[in-house]
Amino acid sequence: MKIAIDAMGGDFAPQAIVEGAILAAKEFTNDIKIVLVGIKDAIQKVLDEQPEVPANIEVFHADEVIEMGEHPTKALQQKPKSSINVGFHLLKNNEIQAFCGAGNTGAMHVGAIFSVKPIDGIMRPCLITHVPKTNGGTSVMLDVGANTDCKPEMLYQFGVLGRVYCKEVLCIENPRVALMNLGEEAGKGNMDAKEAYQLLKADTKLNFVGNIEGRDLFLDKMDVIVCDGFVGNVILKMAESIYEIAAERGVKDDFLNKLNYEAIGGSPILGVNGNVIIGHGISNAIATKNMILLAYKIASADLNNKIKTALQNVV
Amino acid sequence: MKIAIDAMGGDFAPQAIVEGAILAAKEFTNDIKIVLVGIKDAIQKVLDEQPEVPANIEVFHADEVIEMGEHPTKALQQKPKSSINVGFHLLKNNEIQAFCGAGNTGAMHVGAIFSVKPIDGIMRPCLITHVPKTNGGTSVMLDVGANTDCKPEMLYQFGVLGRVYCKEVLCIENPRVALMNLGEEAGKGNMDAKEAYQLLKADTKLNFVGNIEGRDLFLDKMDVIVCDGFVGNVILKMAESIYEIAAERGVKDDFLNKLNYEAIGGSPILGVNGNVIIGHGISNAIATKNMILLAYKIASADLNNKIKTALQNVV
Repeated sequence: MKIAIDAMGGDFAPQAIVEGAILAAKEFTNDIKIVLVGIKDAIQKVLDEQPEVPANIEVFHADEVIEMGEHPTKALQQKPKSSINVGFHLLKNNEIQAFCGAGNTGAMHVGAIFSVKPIDGIMRPCLITHVPKTNGGTSVMLDVGANTDCKPEMLYQFGVLGRVYCKEVLCIENPRVALMNLGEEAGKGNMDAKEAYQLLKADTKLNFVGNIEGRDLFLDKMDVIVCDGFVGNVILKMAESIYEIAAERGVKDDFLNKLNYEAIGGSPILGVNGNVIIGHGISNAIATKNMILLAYKIASADLNNKIKTALQNVV
Repeated sequence: MKIAIDAMGGDFAPQAIVEGAILAAKEFTNDIKIVLVGIKDAIQKVLDEQPEVPANIEVFHADEVIEMGEHPTKALQQKPKSSINVGFHLLKNNEIQAFCGAGNTGAMHVGAIFSVKPIDGIMRPCLITHVPKTNGGTSVMLDVGANTDCKPEMLYQFGVLGRVYCKEVLCIENPRVALMNLGEEAGKGNMDAKEAYQLLKADTKLNFVGNIEGRDLFLDKMDVIVCDGFVGNVILKMAESIYEIAAERGVKDDFLNKLNYEAIGGSPILGVNGNVIIGHGISNAIATKNMILLAYKIASADLNNKIKTALQNVV
C-alpha cells in the first residue's frame, strides 16, 4: 500500500510534512510506503537534515505549488503540475491508495471531486471528523464544512455514510445515528432538520436515536452526529479553540487535550472514489503523522466499497 | 422599580426561585422590589423556612402553573391564571418593569409576544446571551434559539439589536458586530449568511467587522455575534457543557467557570415592549439571583426605548 501526502501543503510545509511522514513511516512495516509529493529539491533538503530516513519514504516530484489563498478551481486548472494535481492523478490511477494534504482546502476538495469523482448515488461528498467522548470513546460528525446548505436528503445520506465509517473505521458494531438540533423532541429544528429527522427515522436499519443538542456533543448518546457543514464547521472550530484556550491557560486535562486538532490529524472526504484526507492548514509534524495513520486505517478498511454497498442497500 | 419572577418556573421551583430572589433582594435598595408570582401558599412555605426575608420581597398570587412539557400556546390559553400569564399581565400594565422565568421556554417566549407585543419594526424578537471572552470582557450572541430559520434581513436586524444591547447594557462605546460563519473571507457561508454579510456591511454605522469562525467565539475580535437561532443554540449549549465537563473532571479555571449557565442567569428576549428574561430550566438559587440582577440592569438601561430609536435611525 502507498499513502501519499502533499509535501507542499500547509503553513509549515515542507518541513513539518516531511518530519510527520518520517514519524508515520516508522510506525509502518516496509511494505507500506509513504510518498511525499512536491518539489523534489525542497523535500530532499528537509530529508537531508533528518538523522534517519526510513526506507519506506519515497519522493514524487511535482513542479508547482497551489498556495493557500488561491481560488481552488482556477488554481487546479492553471497549475496542472501542482503537488495537489499530481497527487490526485496518482490516486486516480491507483498508484497510491490514499492522498492527504494540509494545503488549500478548497483545492483538495475540488481536486477530489474532479479526479476520483463522487461515488454513484452520492448527492454531495462531505467532510467527516472524529469527536472525542468524555467516556473515552469516539463519535464522528459530518458534514464539517464541505456543504453549507444541506437539503434534508443530504443530511439523511450523511447519516448513512457516517454509520458505515463508524462500523468500518472505528469498528463500532451498531453505530447510533443522531441529528444535531436545538432540542431533543421530534419536531424541533429548522425546516431542513425537521425533514431530515423524518427521513432518518424512516430508515429502520439506521439505528437513529433522534435529536441531540449542543450539550450532548461529547457524551455517549450517539456514535454519528449528523449536521450541515455550516453548523459542523462552527462546532469543530469551537471545540479546537477550547483546547487552545485550555492549553494557553495552563489547564492540563486528558479530555480537553483530545480536542487538539493534532490528535486526529485531518478530516476524510466521504463519498468519493478514493481515500482523501484534508488536514488543518497549521498542521505540524504530529498532526501530519496522525493524518497519515488515519489514511492508512481508512484505506485498509476498504471504506469506499463498503459505502457503495450501503448505498445500494438504501436504494 | 419592580422586577417579577415566575416563582413556579423551573425544575427546582419554587424553592430555588424563592431563595434566589432573596439573594437578589439583598443586593437591592428597598425601592427595588422583587415580586414572586405564583401559588401563594407554596411560595409562603419556602419563605417561612428562610432565616430572613428582605422587606423588598413581595408575593403576587397566581392560581395555576404551566408545566415544562406543555404546548406553549395551548397552555397559555387554557391556563389564563397561570403564573406566566399573570406575570405578563402585570408587565403589560406596567405594574412591573421586568419579568423573568425559568419555566416553559416556549410559553415565556409566546407569552411575551402576545402580551407586550413586538416593538414596531422588529421582524422577529430573539434571544440574546452573554459570552465571556478570554481577556475578561463580554460579547453578546443572538439569536440563541428563538428563530431557527432566519432570513438575511433578520440576521441584519440582530446585528442592530445586539449593538444597542452592548452599548446600553454592557456600556461598550462602539460595539463591533461580527457574523458567525465557517470562514473569515467575504463570500463564505450558507446562502443566508452570504446575503446577511452584504446587509451588515452596507450599514456603515454598524461597525461591522466581518465574519468570525467558531474558533473566535471567546476572543476579543468582536462584541456582537450574529447567527441564526439554530447555530446560536448549539453554540450556547456546547459552551455550557464545556463548563460541566470541566467541573465534573475537577478542572479549576476562572475562564471555564464563566461558561457556567449560572453566571449569567438567563437570556433576555430582545425586540418586545417589555423586559423579559428566560432562564435555564435547571436554574438554581445563584442562577435565579443573576437572572434578577440582569433584569434590573436591562430595565435600568431603558433598553427598549433605545431599540426603538435605533430602528427609526435604520429606516
